Amino acid sequence: MGVTRVYLLDGGSLIVDGFHIFWNRGPAGDVRIPVFSVLIEHSDGRFLFDTGFDLAHVNKVLPFEKPLQSEEQTIPGQLHLLGLTPDDVTHVVNSHYHFDHCGGNKLLPRAEVVCHEAELEAARAPEPFEMLGYSDLSFAPGLRDDAPAGAGGYEPRFRTVSGDVELADGLVLLETPGHALGHYSLLVELEGRRPMLFTADACYGPDNLELNCISSFHRDPSAGIRSLQRLREVSAVHDAELFFSHDQEAFDSYRKAPHFYA
Amino acid sequence: MGVTRVYLLDGGSLIVDGFHIFWNRGPAGDVRIPVFSVLIEHSDGRFLFDTGFDLAHVNKVLPFEKPLQSEEQTIPGQLHLLGLTPDDVTHVVNSHYHFDHCGGNKLLPRAEVVCHEAELEAARAPEPFEMLGYSDLSFAPGLRDDAPAGAGGYEPRFRTVSGDVELADGLVLLETPGHALGHYSLLVELEGRRPMLFTADACYGPDNLELNCISSFHRDPSAGIRSLQRLREVSAVHDAELFFSHDQEAFDSYRKAPHFYA
Repeated sequence: MGVTRVYLLDGGSLIVDGFHIFWNRGPAGDVRIPVFSVLIEHSDGRFLFDTGFDLAHVNKVLPFEKPLQSEEQTIPGQLHLLGLTPDDVTHVVNSHYHFDHCGGNKLLPRAEVVCHEAELEAARAPEPFEMLGYSDLSFAPGLRDDAPAGAGGYEPRFRTVSGDVELADGLVLLETPGHALGHYSLLVELEGRRPMLFTADACYGPDNLELNCISSFHRDPSAGIRSLQRLREVSAVHDAELFFSHDQEAFDSYRKAPHFYA
Repeated sequence: MGVTRVYLLDGGSLIVDGFHIFWNRGPAGDVRIPVFSVLIEHSDGRFLFDTGFDLAHVNKVLPFEKPLQSEEQTIPGQLHLLGLTPDDVTHVVNSHYHFDHCGGNKLLPRAEVVCHEAELEAARAPEPFEMLGYSDLSFAPGLRDDAPAGAGGYEPRFRTVSGDVELADGLVLLETPGHALGHYSLLVELEGRRPMLFTADACYGPDNLELNCISSFHRDPSAGIRSLQRLREVSAVHDAELFFSHDQEAFDSYRKAPHFYA
């Protein structure tokens, strides 16, 4: 059986600078970028790849990113479009633990949480230049001294992994570090179409790939360049279609929930 | 004996963006930054720490940095102010091999050239994002296939070193990697005043230290943060005065050749 349907869940948007998107290139200026999650219906369960940002957190800690997120663009709001509730999600898989990829984790209390083992460590002990990136610790209450205990007693069950991992039939996590130390992209193989390759933040948009230019948010830029190359190679070998994480024009072209890929 | 005089040689200026100076912070906008070299008169010889940029190279390869450099701001022009010629320089010491620190090397044919062993390798095989930084290979003709043979037959005699190195009495190279893989800062101890600590590009200006924010030009940002901390500690332990590489306001406050520190 394996993957039956893939839904892209719109999670709202944020503003960053052009110099954040294209390291040392820019051009400068506000750019509004989309944030989304991916729900995979699978014979083994419902997998959610990333969970977007928490609006209240961004408004409090990073208000300069001017977040936009309607009720419908929250994880519960998007699941509701599909007639689902948070309890229907059996697995959360996080590409990495920057605030705009894990803000909804705490709303999915029944799901097992899968991530790269290096990424939990990275979130536990960030570099000074990563403090805003790893500012929302609600996905792992108690991970750091400055991370408050979970409101409502959220207690995640983590499964940490490393290397490339076949999570389930047709669902493969690919190590793509650089942006973060323990970063994963996701390859999704379906019966009826080309494989889908979700780059997550290893590649914000098609121009990053074209220019061979990573984003300015990174921990290891040399690894980031190798990960761009890896995405090119994987997409070529598997004839996979690339789905970029933070590019409005690309996102406009994607099918969004309640529509789906199958 | 040791160090007798220290001259700062004005090498002109370049324009970069505020986002280049303060990684991921900015603000955006053109900033004109100074470039300078340091001539140390020593009982063992004349040491030149860095050699600025080659105006023709920048105009050809990086014209968007809008270089300004008068004849007097070239290495020969600055030496002339002191009644010296290029042949009077016995040692060139390069903090690293970005174009704005080694452009004058080829004009000093008699000097032994000292650098970190990792830095020659970094210049030989740059990352894609370092190609402009390492675009002036005239300091080492033949180092790369795309580095032309030296015009006029310049054949440098390199002495590669690693770790912290006491070059001569009162002249200490301190490893401060991050901006480049093999980066050195220089501590200069004088009889009559506080030690001088030339940060080179481990720290462009006082605000980088204050904000704990490295420049956006870097190979290893985690190492860059550690190097900032190292500069703080060394300056505290030795009561050393910091001399920053690329900050106009700081540079305005420094004594420039033909004046000197002693």
